[in-house]
Amino acid sequence: MRFHTRKWVKPEDLNANGTLFGGKVLAWIDEEAALYSIVQLESKKVVTKYISEINFMSTAMKGDIIEIGIEVIKFGTTSISLNCEVRNKMTHESIVTVDNIIMVNLDESGNPAPHGKTKVEFVKDRLAKKEKEGLS
Amino acid sequence: MRFHTRKWVKPEDLNANGTLFGGKVLAWIDEEAALYSIVQLESKKVVTKYISEINFMSTAMKGDIIEIGIEVIKFGTTSISLNCEVRNKMTHESIVTVDNIIMVNLDESGNPAPHGKTKVEFVKDRLAKKEKEGLS
Amino acid sequence: MRFHTRKWVKPEDLNANGTLFGGKVLAWIDEEAALYSIVQLESKKVVTKYISEINFMSTAMKGDIIEIGIEVIKFGTTSISLNCEVRNKMTHESIVTVDNIIMVNLDESGNPAPHGKTKVEFVKDRLAKKEKEGLS
Amino acid sequence: MRFHTRKWVKPEDLNANGTLFGGKVLAWIDEEAALYSIVQLESKKVVTKYISEINFMSTAMKGDIIEIGIEVIKFGTTSISLNCEVRNKMTHESIVTVDNIIMVNLDESGNPAPHGKTKVEFVKDRLAKKEKEGLS
Amino acid sequence: MRFHTRKWVKPEDLNANGTLFGGKVLAWIDEEAALYSIVQLESKKVVTKYISEINFMSTAMKGDIIEIGIEVIKFGTTSISLNCEVRNKMTHESIVTVDNIIMVNLDESGNPAPHGKTKVEFVKDRLAKKEKEGLS
Amino acid sequence: MRFHTRKWVKPEDLNANGTLFGGKVLAWIDEEAALYSIVQLESKKVVTKYISEINFMSTAMKGDIIEIGIEVIKFGTTSISLNCEVRNKMTHESIVTVDNIIMVNLDESGNPAPHGKTKVEFVKDRLAKKEKEGLS
Repeated sequence: MRFHTRKWVKPEDLNANGTLFGGKVLAWIDEEAALYSIVQLESKKVVTKYISEINFMSTAMKGDIIEIGIEVIKFGTTSISLNCEVRNKMTHESIVTVDNIIMVNLDESGNPAPHGKTKVEFVKDRLAKKEKEGLS
Repeated sequence: MRFHTRKWVKPEDLNANGTLFGGKVLAWIDEEAALYSIVQLESKKVVTKYISEINFMSTAMKGDIIEIGIEVIKFGTTSISLNCEVRNKMTHESIVTVDNIIMVNLDESGNPAPHGKTKVEFVKDRLAKKEKEGLS
Repeated sequence: MRFHTRKWVKPEDLNANGTLFGGKVLAWIDEEAALYSIVQLESKKVVTKYISEINFMSTAMKGDIIEIGIEVIKFGTTSISLNCEVRNKMTHESIVTVDNIIMVNLDESGNPAPHGKTKVEFVKDRLAKKEKEGLS
Repeated sequence: MRFHTRKWVKPEDLNANGTLFGGKVLAWIDEEAALYSIVQLESKKVVTKYISEINFMSTAMKGDIIEIGIEVIKFGTTSISLNCEVRNKMTHESIVTVDNIIMVNLDESGNPAPHGKTKVEFVKDRLAKKEKEGLS
Repeated sequence: MRFHTRKWVKPEDLNANGTLFGGKVLAWIDEEAALYSIVQLESKKVVTKYISEINFMSTAMKGDIIEIGIEVIKFGTTSISLNCEVRNKMTHESIVTVDNIIMVNLDESGNPAPHGKTKVEFVKDRLAKKEKEGLS
Repeated sequence: MRFHTRKWVKPEDLNANGTLFGGKVLAWIDEEAALYSIVQLESKKVVTKYISEINFMSTAMKGDIIEIGIEVIKFGTTSISLNCEVRNKMTHESIVTVDNIIMVNLDESGNPAPHGKTKVEFVKDRLAKKEKEGLS
């Protein structure tokens, strides 16, 4: 699993107990799943359809650095299934794991639409290909 | 199920598609589960331990009113299990349903602690009882 | 008075003294008045016109649960007048009371428009009525 | 009346109608009243006690610049009474006026405490005085 | 330099060390530069093009009042150059200074456009002039 | 340069022109520089001391994905110097570049303190080393 996005736990991210607010973690996961799907599917209209069970394994304190990892489980016709882990950047201790997040690609009218993707792509390869095509 | 907390969907609650941001809904659910548990367990130190699968059935638009319902499934020794639905206030159309949210009561050291509760209580009954005891 | 919306006082809701920021309470009251009016008037274009004097009777601390109550005082032709109380959910101690909030219904051009409502309605009755009409 | 603090109306400040959210204006007024009082009373523990009736005279749109004016009405023994206007910076059109905001000075235990001030002071005069005293 | 906008440092403005978050200060400076330029250039479409080096000279704590000062260095054809200081309102101690912020005026298509301004103007003079013209 | 943290541009990140708010980008850069330094210096008390000139080369729109890259220029005795680029994730077009951000390591009293680091380290190597030491 590749971990990209990082967050610095600040006072505004805490619940009233002074630990990382669970709702904030969920919002961060949903944003990461959305932006990862947008990049992979090359489509800006992607929505969360389903999130499998969520286990809160540990928490984080003010000043901790956390990182969010995403991995593709499956490319469907109109969807993409992701696996997600949030962990402490310094100790690699798991904070939350989610086995399956299903994101759906939508057309202009908001109906599920085929995205045509079947495997993980890297932006740098896409850009290299575009440049090559432009040059030839 | 009783629906209490209401939200007015404002620009800051939208994702980049202009619909209600899924992460915001999850944060609202988590906050409602936490505060409901705090009231029921009469304990301020309650954390989210587990959230069962989440289905996004519909979305909401800017200006919609949504409401959040919570129901107790079970009182455990140190935990409480909740059922949650977020729906459109005007049409009662379901936006998200979550069958099981487990909240755990913690002691000062952050370990699970028995809460001593076995059934739903209403604050007005508690206050009436306290007043009666105070008067007798 | 019916109390619906609840808030969990979090670090982001505090002023620099560590107590609930008065401005946050005012923003919560205004949102609740707006969404209550939208539901009652069945109109999405409702604005705050007037708020009578506001008394801050007590405050709240991090971790407190507060609830917001609204009651209709009067249905005007283009307006609705509301009474509001914010109190501590656990103790029912008043935090803020506002005797009169006047919300105005607007038409497309932003001018006051008759809303045709004369008494409090419940959404479930409206939906039952619609379903019945649809079935007959 | 002197107008100091300015705000640029951004998407996060709008209600669902696309106009400036009334609750945001109230939060801005409360913050300005608090910080003005903190400066005048040279005390960090100042709370809002009372706000007289609030008239919403016009609204603002995304991209508008608004400014907030404060004027002292009266120095009490433990309190200070302020007058406030929020207006459009470019047109000077009034958005909201509040005749009387009463802020109270508190001691360490949270009880009203005399502040010893009787007239508006300017920070530059205070600093000049301190410097002079330091030099002599 | 004239100092207008003031901020009350609240929990949501702090970094994980409990001091004023540098990123928040930068966001406040950028907003102030933008709104100052909008007022001076009488144009709503103004963007930040360049910010010279930024020195963090001191920090602020929860409850401090800070103020932001702006001064025009130069009116360009399509731009305006500003000088900015953020300081503690009570002690006048500098928190951040920025020697040069270049804001650019854009036309409808987003291209630099001449703004026709050559010196600082005051809104009250503009309004007095408009009123006079309207009366004559 | 390695790009880690990603952001999905949402309505709350826009200025009044509907493009990415410059102040938001600056706040994102400052947070990334802080958390990167915290990880590298293995110290939680790190503050921003200096940011060299900032060029805004392009902007971003609602729905764009951006990514933030950080590279170490130099390890000082008590400081670390970073280079930063914010770019569009899909096109790799630069949004903002900053040549030099100096972060300083502080001791408990808030004075600059030697951090003892001289080169970039990876958390996985640190953890592997700790585990090995623990096993031997």
